[in-house]
Amino acid sequence: MDQTVYERGLKRLKEVDGAAGDKVIDSLADISPDLGRLVIEFGFGEIYSRPGLTLQQRELATVAALTALGTAQPQLKVHLAAALNVGLSRTEITETIIQMALYAGFPAALNGMFAAKEVFAEHDRLQQAQQQAA
Amino acid sequence: MDQTVYERGLKRLKEVDGAAGDKVIDSLADISPDLGRLVIEFGFGEIYSRPGLTLQQRELATVAALTALGTAQPQLKVHLAAALNVGLSRTEITETIIQMALYAGFPAALNGMFAAKEVFAEHDRLQQAQQQAA
Amino acid sequence: MDQTVYERGLKRLKEVDGAAGDKVIDSLADISPDLGRLVIEFGFGEIYSRPGLTLQQRELATVAALTALGTAQPQLKVHLAAALNVGLSRTEITETIIQMALYAGFPAALNGMFAAKEVFAEHDRLQQAQQQAA
Amino acid sequence: MDQTVYERGLKRLKEVDGAAGDKVIDSLADISPDLGRLVIEFGFGEIYSRPGLTLQQRELATVAALTALGTAQPQLKVHLAAALNVGLSRTEITETIIQMALYAGFPAALNGMFAAKEVFAEHDRLQQAQQQAA
Amino acid sequence: MDQTVYERGLKRLKEVDGAAGDKVIDSLADISPDLGRLVIEFGFGEIYSRPGLTLQQRELATVAALTALGTAQPQLKVHLAAALNVGLSRTEITETIIQMALYAGFPAALNGMFAAKEVFAEHDRLQQAQQQAA
Amino acid sequence: MDQTVYERGLKRLKEVDGAAGDKVIDSLADISPDLGRLVIEFGFGEIYSRPGLTLQQRELATVAALTALGTAQPQLKVHLAAALNVGLSRTEITETIIQMALYAGFPAALNGMFAAKEVFAEHDRLQQAQQQAA
Repeated sequence: MDQTVYERGLKRLKEVDGAAGDKVIDSLADISPDLGRLVIEFGFGEIYSRPGLTLQQRELATVAALTALGTAQPQLKVHLAAALNVGLSRTEITETIIQMALYAGFPAALNGMFAAKEVFAEHDRLQQAQQQAA
Repeated sequence: MDQTVYERGLKRLKEVDGAAGDKVIDSLADISPDLGRLVIEFGFGEIYSRPGLTLQQRELATVAALTALGTAQPQLKVHLAAALNVGLSRTEITETIIQMALYAGFPAALNGMFAAKEVFAEHDRLQQAQQQAA
Repeated sequence: MDQTVYERGLKRLKEVDGAAGDKVIDSLADISPDLGRLVIEFGFGEIYSRPGLTLQQRELATVAALTALGTAQPQLKVHLAAALNVGLSRTEITETIIQMALYAGFPAALNGMFAAKEVFAEHDRLQQAQQQAA
Repeated sequence: MDQTVYERGLKRLKEVDGAAGDKVIDSLADISPDLGRLVIEFGFGEIYSRPGLTLQQRELATVAALTALGTAQPQLKVHLAAALNVGLSRTEITETIIQMALYAGFPAALNGMFAAKEVFAEHDRLQQAQQQAA
Repeated sequence: MDQTVYERGLKRLKEVDGAAGDKVIDSLADISPDLGRLVIEFGFGEIYSRPGLTLQQRELATVAALTALGTAQPQLKVHLAAALNVGLSRTEITETIIQMALYAGFPAALNGMFAAKEVFAEHDRLQQAQQQAA
Repeated sequence: MDQTVYERGLKRLKEVDGAAGDKVIDSLADISPDLGRLVIEFGFGEIYSRPGLTLQQRELATVAALTALGTAQPQLKVHLAAALNVGLSRTEITETIIQMALYAGFPAALNGMFAAKEVFAEHDRLQQAQQQAA
């Protein structure tokens, strides 16, 4: 059954984070594969597999929280890409970040916005590369 | 025009926070009415009046951020009530709080959930009082 | 197998937190039993059931982290009691708290120490009550 | 010489915090007198005894930092009273708190302002009591 | 009138932050010009244009808060340069940073000090370049 | 006697942090030698020289706290190396980091783990270089 949670989590991780999720798990392989397993099982097999919120709502909440916390820039970038993956618009994402100025101050919002700028630019590069390859 | 921002903000504040918003502004009257004015103008006249996100999305983001930060329990309670006011379901709210365990740890999620428990109970009391009065 | 994780977690929770653990889970029953289940399964069935650290080391790490964060006083108190339960001495606990002044500042250490003062006093009261009952 | 640092610190603590400082040190006496000694020696014998900033500048910096952090309300209240003691005006204090909305968000500023409201009211009560006694 | 707030803010931003302020606003132009506008209007047209504190006091408070928070290194660097611009001495700045060890721990103070080291060195380079150009 | 605290601190710093400690103190020499002195005196001459905890317990607590805070990556790396120096095993270190997922969320644990990965790799390189030199 744990196997089921793991497999459900792995599928959900790919659905939400795409290649970025694999990269995080891979980078843990030689230092703590168990932490990678817990991300998959608890993070995606449990939390992100729960009903009650759409994936768009989940990513909106995550972008808000990680922007406000300001201590998790690598994870914020993964979830900004995930937010695009699950269908949030760039406007929904930047509005969420701007709103964090109210609750966590302007530096948090600015650092979140600069992360979004990087992630959106990377997203554009990938789409252009895919179009050229097609 | 500032007057317009102020008035738009006051209207938005009442729409979102109901009586709880008035209470915050009133409690600032004898120490710093200007901070109250800035909450109304910047918070509600500017940020919460922007297009691009629904009020439900805005409150979902705020509940996520304040739960994750863990330093703003009074404001979290105001926004848990606001989340109900703008039409988020209790499930959407509790799911958002549970998800914060992933990003800010279980104590943050637990303290957010206990705040929700208080706010939902208060909401039930108010509704019962209104029904009895009707 | 999930059932196994749950049962292992419940046993571990009682071993570590004693009655305080039950109280947290019970208080979640009418608002989010699932969050209680995740505390048991993930917190105690997974993390606190891992080999590699003694329970004394785990509670030392938790007291350090929660004192430093300063956003989780209710959970810090639960783990200060747990630290005594698993056999850390009062000196080990207060030394850990003092050390946090270095990493998170004196307010964090002071608020941690006042939490310890409360928990130790409660512990004394319980022990005296048990001795009188015996 | 440590004795000198201790005595210099004790004198500085009284000068800055007045009776509130004694109260903090006293409340540590039965749990960790050493933490009280470190507050006196390191906090006041070292840091607050350094040249380069006036006591007014030091308290302004402390009020700003503790308001922004949002995890140290008891210590913020002690330093709001200290800020008045060393001669900062109520306007200088409330302006500092309002400014924190920019850097740490409105909840931090609001919680700082409500602490100031309490401390200023207590200060008024003490002054009235002293005038009546005179 | 919003226009007035904007213009007052832009003037204040240049006065306080110099070229670094322009750079922040410019870098937002293609991702969220509105966030840049809010920094100017709310940050500088409102907060930094208020009476009650000198600009030196405002920058002292900001350096204290951003050092303590530890989540805003880019903004701390902008305000360390601003602190020099508005006339705070290097000693006043480094003393403020040292004091944060008390309230937010040594890592916060160390990271603030290393930021100051960078900003002061850059300031020296700019002054030498200006002298050579004269 | 201050001299004694300083010397005791310097000795303790070398014992715990090795060359990394010297590097931190050296890098402060031209900006704030006093902050370096306070790290030595207060950090190591006082706190790390206290009885009641072993150095292994102290480093476990520090790794836990700095991982949870997430605002002190350079200091976390110094203490991950120190943890190895004082005899904690890699498993004890990675278990402590994994546990922080519970209290401060997965991003904190992931960023702590990636810091450990770097520090362990550097440690391996140094040991290989020493073996080749021998």
